[in-house]
Amino acid sequence: DRCGFGEVIYGEGKSTDLMIRIVEAQLDAGQTCLITRIDPTSAAQLRRHFPHTHHNPSARTLRIAQDTELLATPVLDENVAHVAVVTAGSTDASVAEEAVETLTWMGIAHLRVEDIGVAGPQRLLAAVPSLRKAAAIVVIAGMEGALPPTVAGHVGVPVFAVPTSTGYGANFGGLTPLMGMLTACAPNVAVVNIDAGFKGAYLGGLVAAQLITNDNGKHLNEQPANEYEGV
Amino acid sequence: DRCGFGEVIYGEGKSTDLMIRIVEAQLDAGQTCLITRIDPTSAAQLRRHFPHTHHNPSARTLRIAQDTELLATPVLDENVAHVAVVTAGSTDASVAEEAVETLTWMGIAHLRVEDIGVAGPQRLLAAVPSLRKAAAIVVIAGMEGALPPTVAGHVGVPVFAVPTSTGYGANFGGLTPLMGMLTACAPNVAVVNIDAGFKGAYLGGLVAAQLITNDNGKHLNEQPANEYEGV
Amino acid sequence: DRCGFGEVIYGEGKSTDLMIRIVEAQLDAGQTCLITRIDPTSAAQLRRHFPHTHHNPSARTLRIAQDTELLATPVLDENVAHVAVVTAGSTDASVAEEAVETLTWMGIAHLRVEDIGVAGPQRLLAAVPSLRKAAAIVVIAGMEGALPPTVAGHVGVPVFAVPTSTGYGANFGGLTPLMGMLTACAPNVAVVNIDAGFKGAYLGGLVAAQLITNDNGKHLNEQPANEYEGV
Amino acid sequence: DRCGFGEVIYGEGKSTDLMIRIVEAQLDAGQTCLITRIDPTSAAQLRRHFPHTHHNPSARTLRIAQDTELLATPVLDENVAHVAVVTAGSTDASVAEEAVETLTWMGIAHLRVEDIGVAGPQRLLAAVPSLRKAAAIVVIAGMEGALPPTVAGHVGVPVFAVPTSTGYGANFGGLTPLMGMLTACAPNVAVVNIDAGFKGAYLGGLVAAQLITNDNGKHLNEQPANEYEGV
Amino acid sequence: DRCGFGEVIYGEGKSTDLMIRIVEAQLDAGQTCLITRIDPTSAAQLRRHFPHTHHNPSARTLRIAQDTELLATPVLDENVAHVAVVTAGSTDASVAEEAVETLTWMGIAHLRVEDIGVAGPQRLLAAVPSLRKAAAIVVIAGMEGALPPTVAGHVGVPVFAVPTSTGYGANFGGLTPLMGMLTACAPNVAVVNIDAGFKGAYLGGLVAAQLITNDNGKHLNEQPANEYEGV
Amino acid sequence: DRCGFGEVIYGEGKSTDLMIRIVEAQLDAGQTCLITRIDPTSAAQLRRHFPHTHHNPSARTLRIAQDTELLATPVLDENVAHVAVVTAGSTDASVAEEAVETLTWMGIAHLRVEDIGVAGPQRLLAAVPSLRKAAAIVVIAGMEGALPPTVAGHVGVPVFAVPTSTGYGANFGGLTPLMGMLTACAPNVAVVNIDAGFKGAYLGGLVAAQLITNDNGKHLNEQPANEYEGV
Amino acid sequence: DRCGFGEVIYGEGKSTDLMIRIVEAQLDAGQTCLITRIDPTSAAQLRRHFPHTHHNPSARTLRIAQDTELLATPVLDENVAHVAVVTAGSTDASVAEEAVETLTWMGIAHLRVEDIGVAGPQRLLAAVPSLRKAAAIVVIAGMEGALPPTVAGHVGVPVFAVPTSTGYGANFGGLTPLMGMLTACAPNVAVVNIDAGFKGAYLGGLVAAQLITNDNGKHLNEQPANEYEGV
Amino acid sequence: DRCGFGEVIYGEGKSTDLMIRIVEAQLDAGQTCLITRIDPTSAAQLRRHFPHTHHNPSARTLRIAQDTELLATPVLDENVAHVAVVTAGSTDASVAEEAVETLTWMGIAHLRVEDIGVAGPQRLLAAVPSLRKAAAIVVIAGMEGALPPTVAGHVGVPVFAVPTSTGYGANFGGLTPLMGMLTACAPNVAVVNIDAGFKGAYLGGLVAAQLITNDNGKHLNEQPANEYEGV
Ligand SMILES: Nc1ncnc2c1ncn2[C@@H]1O[C@H](COP(=O)(O)O)[C@@H](O)[C@H]1O
Ligand SMILES: Nc1ncnc2c1ncn2[C@@H]1O[C@H](COP(=O)(O)O)[C@@H](O)[C@H]1O
Ligand SMILES: Nc1ncnc2c1ncn2[C@@H]1O[C@H](COP(=O)(O)O)[C@@H](O)[C@H]1O
Ligand SMILES: Nc1ncnc2c1ncn2[C@@H]1O[C@H](COP(=O)(O)O)[C@@H](O)[C@H]1O
Ligand SMILES: [Mg+2]
Ligand SMILES: [Mg+2]
Ligand SMILES: [Mg+2]
Ligand SMILES: [Mg+2]
Ligand SMILES: [Mg+2]
Ligand SMILES: [Mg+2]
Ligand SMILES: [Mg+2]
Ligand SMILES: [Mg+2]
Repeated sequence: DRCGFGEVIYGEGKSTDLMIRIVEAQLDAGQTCLITRIDPTSAAQLRRHFPHTHHNPSARTLRIAQDTELLATPVLDENVAHVAVVTAGSTDASVAEEAVETLTWMGIAHLRVEDIGVAGPQRLLAAVPSLRKAAAIVVIAGMEGALPPTVAGHVGVPVFAVPTSTGYGANFGGLTPLMGMLTACAPNVAVVNIDAGFKGAYLGGLVAAQLITNDNGKHLNEQPANEYEGV
Repeated sequence: DRCGFGEVIYGEGKSTDLMIRIVEAQLDAGQTCLITRIDPTSAAQLRRHFPHTHHNPSARTLRIAQDTELLATPVLDENVAHVAVVTAGSTDASVAEEAVETLTWMGIAHLRVEDIGVAGPQRLLAAVPSLRKAAAIVVIAGMEGALPPTVAGHVGVPVFAVPTSTGYGANFGGLTPLMGMLTACAPNVAVVNIDAGFKGAYLGGLVAAQLITNDNGKHLNEQPANEYEGV
Repeated sequence: DRCGFGEVIYGEGKSTDLMIRIVEAQLDAGQTCLITRIDPTSAAQLRRHFPHTHHNPSARTLRIAQDTELLATPVLDENVAHVAVVTAGSTDASVAEEAVETLTWMGIAHLRVEDIGVAGPQRLLAAVPSLRKAAAIVVIAGMEGALPPTVAGHVGVPVFAVPTSTGYGANFGGLTPLMGMLTACAPNVAVVNIDAGFKGAYLGGLVAAQLITNDNGKHLNEQPANEYEGV
Repeated sequence: DRCGFGEVIYGEGKSTDLMIRIVEAQLDAGQTCLITRIDPTSAAQLRRHFPHTHHNPSARTLRIAQDTELLATPVLDENVAHVAVVTAGSTDASVAEEAVETLTWMGIAHLRVEDIGVAGPQRLLAAVPSLRKAAAIVVIAGMEGALPPTVAGHVGVPVFAVPTSTGYGANFGGLTPLMGMLTACAPNVAVVNIDAGFKGAYLGGLVAAQLITNDNGKHLNEQPANEYEGV
Repeated sequence: DRCGFGEVIYGEGKSTDLMIRIVEAQLDAGQTCLITRIDPTSAAQLRRHFPHTHHNPSARTLRIAQDTELLATPVLDENVAHVAVVTAGSTDASVAEEAVETLTWMGIAHLRVEDIGVAGPQRLLAAVPSLRKAAAIVVIAGMEGALPPTVAGHVGVPVFAVPTSTGYGANFGGLTPLMGMLTACAPNVAVVNIDAGFKGAYLGGLVAAQLITNDNGKHLNEQPANEYEGV
Repeated sequence: DRCGFGEVIYGEGKSTDLMIRIVEAQLDAGQTCLITRIDPTSAAQLRRHFPHTHHNPSARTLRIAQDTELLATPVLDENVAHVAVVTAGSTDASVAEEAVETLTWMGIAHLRVEDIGVAGPQRLLAAVPSLRKAAAIVVIAGMEGALPPTVAGHVGVPVFAVPTSTGYGANFGGLTPLMGMLTACAPNVAVVNIDAGFKGAYLGGLVAAQLITNDNGKHLNEQPANEYEGV
Repeated sequence: DRCGFGEVIYGEGKSTDLMIRIVEAQLDAGQTCLITRIDPTSAAQLRRHFPHTHHNPSARTLRIAQDTELLATPVLDENVAHVAVVTAGSTDASVAEEAVETLTWMGIAHLRVEDIGVAGPQRLLAAVPSLRKAAAIVVIAGMEGALPPTVAGHVGVPVFAVPTSTGYGANFGGLTPLMGMLTACAPNVAVVNIDAGFKGAYLGGLVAAQLITNDNGKHLNEQPANEYEGV
Repeated sequence: DRCGFGEVIYGEGKSTDLMIRIVEAQLDAGQTCLITRIDPTSAAQLRRHFPHTHHNPSARTLRIAQDTELLATPVLDENVAHVAVVTAGSTDASVAEEAVETLTWMGIAHLRVEDIGVAGPQRLLAAVPSLRKAAAIVVIAGMEGALPPTVAGHVGVPVFAVPTSTGYGANFGGLTPLMGMLTACAPNVAVVNIDAGFKGAYLGGLVAAQLITNDNGKHLNEQPANEYEGV
């Protein structure tokens, strides 16, 4: 049976053959697979090999399952624990896509809120009521280190901030939003690696998953983690 | 009634008078108060003014409540959502104390695990079974940027890593453990500001609080956050 | 007559004697004097020497004039060009005091708004209507690199952001708020040196001064600048 | 009628369709449009769609209006508030072009002074008299962090310094001129993001616009800012 | 006779002709040659010129000897001093290949352990027994600054850590793993330059070589070093 | 019996009581103890408690053993594996003392060479013959990042470079010598943390210890490491 | 007549037409021209336009004069003031070529010493006698920050150190050798910008030129500098 | 006889006894001595021991000679090669004093120009004619990275720039002026270590000394350098 989440496969630098071998082992173990940072050519090759796949070229992800239903995006129900994925501007979209794919792979529903940079405060204020329904929020921004604490000031759940490297000027490969996000006063903001949409979503997904599991009387955190690392 | 958590008071640079005014307003509103980064002199003055206080000089915190029971440390029950607070070495202790005080102020029980730097792997392995019961883990380390991902590799819940500035050599005021913690492979590690024991614990506490609230059918995240910011 | 603004005297590293000589030359030339970064002992010595002075120990400034009226704070009239001075938290107060003294020395009225960090959005929203009356805004913050762009999103005038070195954790002597302020999306934010309350206010004051001068048909910017540099 | 300035559109990462939709909304609202960081192909597509456009390939900008007169460069009259745009060397030209386009879009006239690096002091001294007529000065430099304070020493108005990333050697993506500009002694220099010709000009344009508006009895800064952010 | 190790040839920026001249001089002096950072075209040209060569395209190395046996990989015998080469993930493979080629050129046998990042602790624990047989360990990691101290905690020999630049996010060209490796508590970790598989292996090889030489009563460290540097 | 080396005790931030408890456990286990970064007051207290101690105030170390002979400095015999400890200038002396104490604690003899900065090449050249007898060399320098590669160019054994934070000017807390040491061409230089005389010596000591052990047919690296970490 | 040195033309970012106009103005004024950072296409175009040119593609320089003799390399006479140009390795060659072209343009003879990295001390020692004849020494190194102070320890004249960006690993675009060169103990080393072969040579050339001019009773430093900056 | 310059003694971290022994050896060898970074107590002790001394407490230097005339400041004659020492502001004075003491010890006359920061251009322009008489110029600045290139634009001799750590705000221990000085366009600026007044002056002194020696037919640069390093 499925316990915790399988090990995500980091596609960069891996041969197609190696990825196929890992995927087969994970499928055999009853897990759904997520490959990140996969290039289009490799993705196409894996799609020819496995019947049930979902490729998101913008996210650079490939999901693979035993059958197609397992690849569907969970339906958002505001009474069930879910995660909001927020971006500051259009240059942050591909990192957000990676976050969304990760949540879907975890079986967690998401709310997507786009392009609410702090320079235009009206749009952020409009989104607050729906943001307050989420169990955790992933905020993705490259030019707007200010966005995560600003969002966090309106909610009472963990905010996972993802700095992106796509800003211009003194972005310094994402170092500047990273530092701004770390030092902001809001007490409910934690930060993950630059461009790490996967990590922000994984953490948000763990928060939601515990809530869902909890309702069913099972503790997710007693499950073994990272099972298939060694394939 | 109690909604979300009151606003923590950052004591540094605030006059005793100002702190007293903020505390009175928070108590009036039915909240328990937490002051961080308070110096011993100010703490003594506030303790003369308020009857029900808990001062932790190592943590540099002062908690103030309407009565003494509200200041008690919640009893750890491994079947109830709680947070583990882990340190790498003895120089990280005061940051861990701030974390523990924060959790207590939130009403969340904690498990304290000390001095399990990766250079001595036996102690970490011994702690794994109890760490796997926690709803979230706060890992505090100055010389051991390696500790959070190492801990995280053994569990399936969010790990909040707190880099400390007390390491020696190329610690660079905490920048080096911070960067090491951010870039480690473990997918379930998020990072907060250097020495921010308060923040790490606050985030861990939010994760646990949602689980507890959830059991009672009430959603923490629908509560207004940061109520008394403006005093 | 008075043209432009006299040269401010940077007090650090200057002997009392040297400061007295410079002040005398400036007073002879009909200028009001501003000394910044002056220690209390030197300030006391200069106050014994000159009859008309204003010492602000928190700002570490001393203003000296030919008579006492010239030292008065200009009265705020929202129909006359003035500058708002905004701080994120109580640790930013002394930099704000330096800004306020600078504006007063320039003859420019100011509006002081304190402690409106983005983690508590209610207070900022409440201040917006009065902030929108100012000709320029100086925003001073050490832990809240997010504050200047957040303020700037609500107004249509230049915002001069002053990062402070008094934040904790990854503040890095002010480098982190500096970078956050520089990279935020808001188009109307410019940044000055860390802790440079004087500079932020001087720039804001120049914007207001041009508006005032303009009404009287005289162009400030045609005046010679920095007259007494060489004393 | 026209109030404040419309929201500039950052073209990088936006589809042509999205840009067309935003432009149409802004034109409908009676605003002139400015797109920055637009690539030549997208610019050509938008020019086929809208009849009244001005494309500056060096600046990578496209301006779009309801009719052609609205795209004309305002005539420089030294008695009317205007902005000087100064460059240190020929590698700074494209950033200066972005600045010039921004001023034109704001309806503000400009004076262009090229290639006055401090290594050849004669040219700078020759330009001083005309620089002293401007309401604000934008100084753009990549290898000459020294230029903004040197210019500022000759004038009494705000200088907005724009560091560029095109210098060689220890330019470090613009970080070195940025730091040099921030720390120079001149009190009237503020800094914007690396390569942000748009921002430097926008701030200079706001200073000039207030002076112009003021003459007509209307306060620019009471206008709503950033109207169309949410399209 | 062969004493110490000949000078390795850094191939980048050297013409084929120059490399041929250096190799001929080294072969004449009775040494086996190692060229690092050689591009495929140059390697092909040298292989046409010299009869006994070993090209490793992933490592970007070329070894050249007087005859083919001298190019063979030494057989691993756990009772003879040898070096372990450990990688965290598949992106570190080419640096590990450079390390392996260097050890082979030195005549030192190696143990290769792949893909044991700390996020999956089972694989590392499985490798410990064989790692404890090595005279020195080279640990190569880009995203796992945590790996060298974690490995080092299980052994009592020198660990030479090689940070790689191929991680993503806040890797900063290898600076982040470098710093993490330097500051970890484990007392038996030393660090070499980023991507310097050659250096890590050379140091490990020197440790093993002294042990081997010592058995034969000859002190390696009395030999002249770096003989052919000047060709 | 004694296997490998006991765990060194990092004295900073530890109470006297805690250190006494750890020392007693280590002595009971038959190990000699080394405390580093111990302040004079704590050292005096421990010396009153244990009969056989060696305090080096410059090194800030305390060694404690079951009897006084175990504290003696091993006699240097150039035919037995030993370690050279080299400093660039007089400001590096205390770090060198920590290195020397560490080697003595390990039972490894050392050669001390002082003050051979590269600006005076005669002294370095004079020391080369004796440096070439050592099994490993520890080079300690704050202003002379150039020293380790210069020394390394004359020998064929591992050089462990220790950057110190005591240089002046652009030393940046040791970051500059650290970087210079990492990037130098010499293939036989590895670097440890800033001011980490303990680590440099520990690594050099491990190299020498293997050679000594090896002569006696016993493999040091098969011993369990870091036994008493958990006390 | 020729006084001081004309202004060098930085070719990057300049159109061919602009360069031709500047060159013509300089030739008219009786000066020899030096263009640096010129691409091959532009160089070819200028060579078609001017009859007397010298193109060095490795240096990326073009020299242009009134007639061909003025382009000849001055003959080295060890009794006449000249400059040594020293490189650490083959990757530093193009920067050295720029230095050599600059000296030739200044009419100063040079001594070229290649590939004397400190890892092979024999070659450096062999070069010392001829290095001690030079009036100044330019030392160019990317991986060998140690080279300038090592050279400087053998001579009593100014050493101008040029860090290069072509090293690998922790070179960080030249920042590491730059810092190493700045902090070395040798008192006679000054540093110029990364890859700035032109600057190192220009400074060395000024030292030599003063010595030559002085013999002829004329003081170079009384001449106007940088004449043609404004073309 | 006196050849080149004796080795300066870096006083920091040296015992009085050690300094006395070095000074005696240098005096015996017929050299005048310079100790830098000496504290007042040590200076007083050495003054009691040696009859002919010159202590400059601001510079933190002590000069010691065989008789008092050898300690006199050389008289400035504008026809004899000399060095100008320029400061931006009063906080740079102690570094300038170290420079002046160094020149005097070398027997080189100097011109002192104080407080000519670029914000007040009149004073710099007034100093240009006398600056143009110097053989080299040392420019010392902490807040005015702009000063060296600005000075250099007016002269045709080497400018040695000394960044100081005493600026405020984003000075970062001198890193910011250092970087600004390195990247400025002026071709005749080289940089030395932060606060290294000694080094800047030593280099300037070498330039002047060659000119003086040259007039007398003797080549300074053929003399052995750094004679007494080994005392
Ligand atoms: N010890 C602490 N570490 C990090 N952040 C803190 C700490 N204490 C308070 N804060 C933050 O500072 C804010 C309160 O600042 P203030 O309004 O100045 O008291 C709170 O919103 C917290 O987010
Ligand atoms: N060239 C530019 N440089 C800096 N900021 C810009 C530039 N162009 C647009 N912006 C900012 O980016 C925002 C628009 O981003 P977007 O909503 O993604 O089009 C505006 O509020 C501007 O502040
Ligand atoms: N002076 C020192 N320099 C560097 N690392 C040290 C030093 N002293 C102790 N350590 C390390 O710190 C660890 C002991 O820390 P602790 O358990 O807190 O006493 C040891 O494993 C050593 O690796
Ligand atoms: N004030 C100073 N600033 C920079 N370098 C200095 C200074 N004083 C001495 N030195 C250098 O330090 C070396 C002397 O160091 P030491 O042998 O420890 O006295 C000399 O070769 C000088 O290059
Ligand atoms: Mg937007
Ligand atoms: Mg893996
Ligand atoms: Mg420990
Ligand atoms: Mg607050
Ligand atoms: Mg001044
Ligand atoms: Mg070589
Ligand atoms: Mg010395
Ligand atoms: Mg030019």
